[in-house]
Amino acid sequence: MRANTRVLRSVAIVAITVPLVCCRATPSTFAETEFEIRELLRVQVEAWNRGDLEGFAQTYEKSPNLVFRGPRDLTTGWDAMLARYRRGYPDRAAMGTLRFQDLECHILADGVAIAHGHWQLTRKDDSPSGYFAIVLQRGTDGWRIVVDCSG
Amino acid sequence: MRANTRVLRSVAIVAITVPLVCCRATPSTFAETEFEIRELLRVQVEAWNRGDLEGFAQTYEKSPNLVFRGPRDLTTGWDAMLARYRRGYPDRAAMGTLRFQDLECHILADGVAIAHGHWQLTRKDDSPSGYFAIVLQRGTDGWRIVVDCSG
Repeated sequence: MRANTRVLRSVAIVAITVPLVCCRATPSTFAETEFEIRELLRVQVEAWNRGDLEGFAQTYEKSPNLVFRGPRDLTTGWDAMLARYRRGYPDRAAMGTLRFQDLECHILADGVAIAHGHWQLTRKDDSPSGYFAIVLQRGTDGWRIVVDCSG
Repeated sequence: MRANTRVLRSVAIVAITVPLVCCRATPSTFAETEFEIRELLRVQVEAWNRGDLEGFAQTYEKSPNLVFRGPRDLTTGWDAMLARYRRGYPDRAAMGTLRFQDLECHILADGVAIAHGHWQLTRKDDSPSGYFAIVLQRGTDGWRIVVDCSG
């Protein structure tokens, strides 16, 4: 075979196959995403219910861009989010037992998902509850919450 | 030139150039995204301030997946969002004059952005205000709000 034909053949093979492997990885299916997000929220609930606010906070993205929209305020950044939880729930009694219900998820884009549902705390003297809507992004460490609208 | 060489050359040219044009378009810069989102919110405010709730609602994605997290409730879907606004703001007097302040945006992923800020209504007898956090997605018609946490 002539040299230029071999070169063209090699170029053709590389140019066809490289985009196939270098393009972004196949997006997760909805079922995979939903499973992973439910797992993240299970980790979150378990941390809360053992009184581990620091562990609970690991499910949020450690970024200054994290947005937390509470009933009457809005904070940005992971440190502010954790500080806000510590002020609102200063001890184990205040934290009570957390439960999520009616969870629904959907994929917004590759690696970005939305979940919403209902939260309830059971404490000695009351049982506050409300809705939440969260936006999650998948990074190198898995899914993390990047926007939290709870109240 | 031999036929198979011409074919290989054509394949090589197409296989090199097609991914360059067919891969997703170059992501918008932050400046472009911020400008487009500010424009969307300007359209939203102008519609509100002429009493045009239907026009205001065009800035939201017309989808059953739209999430609206109000102070005490959570609704899904564009119809439910518009119905909610109609109940809360039944006439021009109730709508007052809307203003946004302290707007900040950041890009979450290509075609997905977060914006947050402070809203204020000025009406004859009161001036309610609060924070908002929204998630926007860029579709074929431009940016639309897909999650709205206002209150």
